[in-house]
Amino acid sequence: MDSGALTLGPNLGPEIMSQIDLLAACSESAECLTRSYLTDQHARANDLVLGWMGKAGMDCGVDPVGNALGRYEGRRPGLPALILGSHLDTVRDAGKYDGMLGVVTAIACVKALKDAGERLDFAIEVVGFGDEEGVRFQSTLLGSRALAGTFDMSLLDKRDVDGMTMAQAMRDFGLDPARVPQAAKRPDQVLAYVELHIEQGPVLEAESLPLGAVTSIAGATRLEVAISGTSGHAGTVPMVGRKDALAAAAEAVMAVETICCGADELVGTVGRLEVAPGAVNVIPGEARFSVDIRAAEDMPRHRAVNAVIGEIREICARRGLTLELERNHESPSCPCAPWLIEQIARAIAAEGIALRRLPSGAGHDAMAMAALCDVGMLFVRCAGGISHNPAEAITMEDAASGARALLRFIRDFEPEARRAVAAL
Amino acid sequence: MDSGALTLGPNLGPEIMSQIDLLAACSESAECLTRSYLTDQHARANDLVLGWMGKAGMDCGVDPVGNALGRYEGRRPGLPALILGSHLDTVRDAGKYDGMLGVVTAIACVKALKDAGERLDFAIEVVGFGDEEGVRFQSTLLGSRALAGTFDMSLLDKRDVDGMTMAQAMRDFGLDPARVPQAAKRPDQVLAYVELHIEQGPVLEAESLPLGAVTSIAGATRLEVAISGTSGHAGTVPMVGRKDALAAAAEAVMAVETICCGADELVGTVGRLEVAPGAVNVIPGEARFSVDIRAAEDMPRHRAVNAVIGEIREICARRGLTLELERNHESPSCPCAPWLIEQIARAIAAEGIALRRLPSGAGHDAMAMAALCDVGMLFVRCAGGISHNPAEAITMEDAASGARALLRFIRDFEPEARRAVAAL
Repeated sequence: MDSGALTLGPNLGPEIMSQIDLLAACSESAECLTRSYLTDQHARANDLVLGWMGKAGMDCGVDPVGNALGRYEGRRPGLPALILGSHLDTVRDAGKYDGMLGVVTAIACVKALKDAGERLDFAIEVVGFGDEEGVRFQSTLLGSRALAGTFDMSLLDKRDVDGMTMAQAMRDFGLDPARVPQAAKRPDQVLAYVELHIEQGPVLEAESLPLGAVTSIAGATRLEVAISGTSGHAGTVPMVGRKDALAAAAEAVMAVETICCGADELVGTVGRLEVAPGAVNVIPGEARFSVDIRAAEDMPRHRAVNAVIGEIREICARRGLTLELERNHESPSCPCAPWLIEQIARAIAAEGIALRRLPSGAGHDAMAMAALCDVGMLFVRCAGGISHNPAEAITMEDAASGARALLRFIRDFEPEARRAVAAL
Repeated sequence: MDSGALTLGPNLGPEIMSQIDLLAACSESAECLTRSYLTDQHARANDLVLGWMGKAGMDCGVDPVGNALGRYEGRRPGLPALILGSHLDTVRDAGKYDGMLGVVTAIACVKALKDAGERLDFAIEVVGFGDEEGVRFQSTLLGSRALAGTFDMSLLDKRDVDGMTMAQAMRDFGLDPARVPQAAKRPDQVLAYVELHIEQGPVLEAESLPLGAVTSIAGATRLEVAISGTSGHAGTVPMVGRKDALAAAAEAVMAVETICCGADELVGTVGRLEVAPGAVNVIPGEARFSVDIRAAEDMPRHRAVNAVIGEIREICARRGLTLELERNHESPSCPCAPWLIEQIARAIAAEGIALRRLPSGAGHDAMAMAALCDVGMLFVRCAGGISHNPAEAITMEDAASGARALLRFIRDFEPEARRAVAAL
């Protein structure tokens, strides 16, 4: 626990931002940033990252699933590793910080250790995951699942829009699909996984804080709701006795909002709503909509989902409408390990920043890594909460704050805290 | 006021239904019934109608705007006329009673008078209007506006989807567009306009009544509403501080329903609603919807429209959203003349049918004819309130009831009642 002499230089912010810009130039499109798994642009991004890892004193290479992976040994070779990182792929027409900031910052921290000639009681590995967003093969978290040993080999047969299988894309990338299982780490090789990421939400900005400690990655339930009533002439059918599917859907939208405003760290959204026949002078006979409910913990989410379903049933029964309701997505919440939250919080506080613990509403590689080891996350403020959009932005100062806090976390990292908890 | 000997024969119902079927066979499409203004099918329908008018002892022909028009003189030639009728055009994929039933029934009544050798103190004219629905040139009530003297000659330049102007379509139909103004009747030639029509709504069916007396054709206001908020990630943006455009639109839909349930003969409908970006995991930043509010009288409609606009403004202000609201349609209500309602009601009651007065939520030729003379309407029950749909249906018994009531109304018609009112 020596956070002494070593400091990150004044060029840290500019260096992180310029590396981000170099990665953002690896795009499938000239107009915007789009970089999918196993493309030429993925290979170029890996080359950049491996170059920086090399300069940071890491042994590095591309792993069997296409992740860029570097290792900085501890006081002696072969020690268990603290894994840091995030993803290198993007959504279509993406921002340039989502994923990349976590990879670049982790390398900057290792480079500071290397420049100071400092070795720790554990190894550090940095991963730039090849796929988190799932854009190309419609299956997310491929890189982190491979590392965690939960990669589903049947996915190798999935095809992209051009009809190419994932297996063939791997071969074209220089990988052997049969070797994907070898990307998996053994639990005894790993101490924890810690991911720095932009918040992708407005909370830190609203509270004027550059950093936050993530408590949990929210679980999510998605419902697909179809309500059928009776369409009719908007002028000739009296209000009493109407079976207006949109009126019922509107009541349901209000119920989602009311129920999900009832608890902290719970959100509910109706993002899609379609009405048929959809003419100005016709009472809607059909309404379809999605419901997306997320919460940091599973219990309040289940309670909210049940309350929403109960309300929608009551609304349709009272109005004499037919209801079809399908639960088409269910992911449990992924709590961050308390001992990691604690150490991340300490590092943030030591930077003189008021501590904000907050859940992550979006999914991250840490969700997949939780199958292998305890996980923690550090959020960096982003402008307006905007993400998955070219307008995504952070300040250079916040990038530097994130790196300083991450380096402090690394140097003060106490893996025994995990064992202490486990021994209880 | 002699409703004596003359009766309609037992073949009346079947005859009306078979004439309806013959008209329904004049369609632009083999699969469904579609018959637009100034088409070959319009000409064929006119030929059928003129044939039946001739057999009913009427002088008949196509008027300068393409209406089929027949005249049955009274006790001496040249007496002012009671005008009966409805329209012969249809919507796309239409039912076969909308409009046609009123034309065929009126001719059946005149034929009964002719067969009995009966002449009245007034002439009777029957019109089959060439255009009411406005499908071809996107402008409604062309036939009745011409008769009423309110035809807008600038419409002659309007084009159909194939680019043909209305003027050219008239010439191809054998008409001279310059002569359209000559279709207009002088007020002193006309006693009243009375239209029999299917209800196109569910009220009579719900009350097990075959016929009803229309009190008013509802006025309508249409609003186009656009609400702008801020889209964002469904997982990362807390409920507090969201600017969800759909949540506001849902509140507005509920407000329309609540306000319009508050008064009889008032209806309000949100028939169209679109959400953007419309993804399951994105908070809607934009919502657009239509509002259609109708009432038998203008005052309650204006009150409801103002209340709805006030509520939508309040909702958007409270939620911090941007509102654009446009009033893109406004038609005043068209009250039926009390003296005509009274005489129609008497005819229905004389048929042993419990009297139901009801407004019309849909528009009719009577709206245009009201510029020329007092108007009245007689509604016939239709199945399930369904109209503008091939499933449109009435029973043969109701068709016969309608004809009997209309004939009774004609024979008992007292035009002096109007003068009595005017003299007050």
